[in-house]
Amino acid sequence: MVVRKIISMKIFLISSLLYLFAGSVLASPEIQFWETSKGAKVYFVPSNDIPMVDVRIVFDAGSARDQTAEGGLAGTALMTNGLLSEGAAGDDAQALAEKFEAVGAQFGNGSLKDMAWLNMRSLRDDQFLKPALSNLKNILTRADFPKAAFKRELERLKIAVKSSKQSPGSIASERFFKELYGDHPYAQPSAGTEESLGKLQLKHLKAFYKKYYVASNAVVAIVGQLSKTEAEKMAEYLLAGLSSGQHAPALPEVKPLTKAKTIHIDFPSRQSTVLMGQVGMARGDKDYFALYLANHAFGGSGFGSRLMHEVREKRGLAYSTYSYFSLMRSAGPFQIGLKTRNDQVDKAMKVIHDELDKYIANGPDEDEIQDSLKNITGGFPLRIDSNKKIVEYLTLIGFYDLPLDYLNTFVASVNRQDKAKIDAALKRRIHADKMLTVIVGAKAHK
Amino acid sequence: MVVRKIISMKIFLISSLLYLFAGSVLASPEIQFWETSKGAKVYFVPSNDIPMVDVRIVFDAGSARDQTAEGGLAGTALMTNGLLSEGAAGDDAQALAEKFEAVGAQFGNGSLKDMAWLNMRSLRDDQFLKPALSNLKNILTRADFPKAAFKRELERLKIAVKSSKQSPGSIASERFFKELYGDHPYAQPSAGTEESLGKLQLKHLKAFYKKYYVASNAVVAIVGQLSKTEAEKMAEYLLAGLSSGQHAPALPEVKPLTKAKTIHIDFPSRQSTVLMGQVGMARGDKDYFALYLANHAFGGSGFGSRLMHEVREKRGLAYSTYSYFSLMRSAGPFQIGLKTRNDQVDKAMKVIHDELDKYIANGPDEDEIQDSLKNITGGFPLRIDSNKKIVEYLTLIGFYDLPLDYLNTFVASVNRQDKAKIDAALKRRIHADKMLTVIVGAKAHK
Repeated sequence: MVVRKIISMKIFLISSLLYLFAGSVLASPEIQFWETSKGAKVYFVPSNDIPMVDVRIVFDAGSARDQTAEGGLAGTALMTNGLLSEGAAGDDAQALAEKFEAVGAQFGNGSLKDMAWLNMRSLRDDQFLKPALSNLKNILTRADFPKAAFKRELERLKIAVKSSKQSPGSIASERFFKELYGDHPYAQPSAGTEESLGKLQLKHLKAFYKKYYVASNAVVAIVGQLSKTEAEKMAEYLLAGLSSGQHAPALPEVKPLTKAKTIHIDFPSRQSTVLMGQVGMARGDKDYFALYLANHAFGGSGFGSRLMHEVREKRGLAYSTYSYFSLMRSAGPFQIGLKTRNDQVDKAMKVIHDELDKYIANGPDEDEIQDSLKNITGGFPLRIDSNKKIVEYLTLIGFYDLPLDYLNTFVASVNRQDKAKIDAALKRRIHADKMLTVIVGAKAHK
Repeated sequence: MVVRKIISMKIFLISSLLYLFAGSVLASPEIQFWETSKGAKVYFVPSNDIPMVDVRIVFDAGSARDQTAEGGLAGTALMTNGLLSEGAAGDDAQALAEKFEAVGAQFGNGSLKDMAWLNMRSLRDDQFLKPALSNLKNILTRADFPKAAFKRELERLKIAVKSSKQSPGSIASERFFKELYGDHPYAQPSAGTEESLGKLQLKHLKAFYKKYYVASNAVVAIVGQLSKTEAEKMAEYLLAGLSSGQHAPALPEVKPLTKAKTIHIDFPSRQSTVLMGQVGMARGDKDYFALYLANHAFGGSGFGSRLMHEVREKRGLAYSTYSYFSLMRSAGPFQIGLKTRNDQVDKAMKVIHDELDKYIANGPDEDEIQDSLKNITGGFPLRIDSNKKIVEYLTLIGFYDLPLDYLNTFVASVNRQDKAKIDAALKRRIHADKMLTVIVGAKAHK
């Protein structure tokens, strides 16, 4: 169901923050890379620990492609991905799900602004793996886009979009992206709008599928008890029904705001939701490691962060506050967030601005840097300790064109940072005087 | 994390509605039953389809036991269950999770008002199954209840409880249970209150664990590629570290409301959340099949239901409306729900009352009954078509003392219903003049 997709989108967004806690380790996996005959990129790690195979297929077919798709309607990417498992090769959603369950396989799919994906974990034994792959191949290459399922899922998505208008958090986030990204496709909400969904038709989904679900636009990641030859055959088999097509074109450059902007949306709630931020960085940015460390101490490490200490512990202005960089194809946002009582918004914002100014001026202190280094490099092995985690990293590496030794060099790259580099990156990249601030809540009486 | 538990509670509540769509089928599984040496009830279905084992252990240790636990604090059951996987036999949460991942096993735990559970799916091969079972056994019988994890999870739960005060849906549901159940333990919120969590200590969790996580209070369900002897050994092994203890005592009887009651909670939102209902029935109620069919046509079948037709299709008063029975140990609620614009609450409530009166007076028509029968009996095979689904049914059968042939006789029991029986049950059990109504939203100006 598409609605469930939206929920899992949110979960994915949260879990994608975990990727910020990433580094490298001596025992990093050896990644094998090749292209299929049709031009899909394949990343493979053999693993004999368990008799299972994990496969994940990612397309550059997230909602960033809605604007240039036929119809140009927000919500097209999400609905297209969601419909794949609603009917394929004559099987309905229930039959497709049963075929996976019958062989003990787990299947999932989803989409965000950049990516759209399908993933599967199956037993290695051919008796189970073959039917599971056949079912996955059907979903991937023989989707039926049934009319009834389209109508039902579209209705559900409309209800979800409508009900998100009652959620201060959703309102704030949607407006934040709209204001920060302007003409850039990231400005559009992935779930669409009441207007765009009102116009969305099955033909738009089919056209989107035909254009973006093509081999040249795909990254395939495989981890499991397989030889390279077996993995090669598997990738060829899965994508055989797709046309070669073309890779999606580069996204437009993101233009940062040239001056500060504050928007207060009146909403009848007792707490105000505040999002503040600016254009941050893309995956692979040269300042990534310095800014990652900088953010970790500032607002990226939960209870130990400066923001939590100043806003929550010392002043009790909010239960929770945080900051993070979203790493995306184009520059993703740097965001600071909190919720606070309507009459405390000004006070809380002043604390955050003061702390940000101080941080940009003086940077983190040596203790903070050492703690962050230890925390990040120490936690890295846990980030790649299972096949499921590795298969996700492989798609990140492939999708964002990161170097094949990304996992092997991460810790060293983190350890190469020092106060001078962090301070310089902070000053160069974070502009406290050009922040976008979106506040959703009842305006307090002054 | 306990907070994640709350989210999955909600998901479980939704999915538990699916159980209402249940019946029996010729190919129902043969259930084997026995008790362990310490008095735990075991339900086993051998299944050779896939080389996997599913196990689910359920205790009568949900939040209905908070009141009579040491301290008597709401939130005790939820925190106790959540802490089990935060540290056991010297391993921290991360190490426990890794041990499952290393052998490809999936683990989960959670709790609701009635039940608290742990579940695991593992590969059948001893090389993987044995370490997975050992890890599960440690979590179940050697929990460490680490101080730091307790503090952190309690903090998270407090934040979640505080933020639920901003959600009209949560406010309505909490108040609904409080008013409907009065002194009965179902009245208390499973996640606790700011007050109860303020008093909660680690010793309360340990005492709760000692009293309720005992063999006599447990139901074990096993489905997989095992002989009965192997399943017997597995159950003995898993529970060896638990004391025999005692089964939790019967819950007090639920007293239905003696007259109608309406509560309007002023909340600054544009939409009002409405919950209306009464005490419904417990699992195993003699009117279950008749009321299940009755509700299906009234508000239990989505877009095809009377409520949706009258409230949404004909009058556009809400995007969605529904009704359902929650089946619990004591009588669970019968609930009707919708969200509507503040100024349409009275109108929507009048439509619902009119429809309910009409339905109780005349019952469903023959077409509705035939559609419901077909829908329910036709959909049943899909409800027990995988080991994961069967293992959940086994715990329901064990926990609620349903007959061992429950799945085999379900369809026949549904088919035995007719208009006379349904009408009689409706008149006997649904009292439109004694409904509790909770409305959360800004009061409209008359």
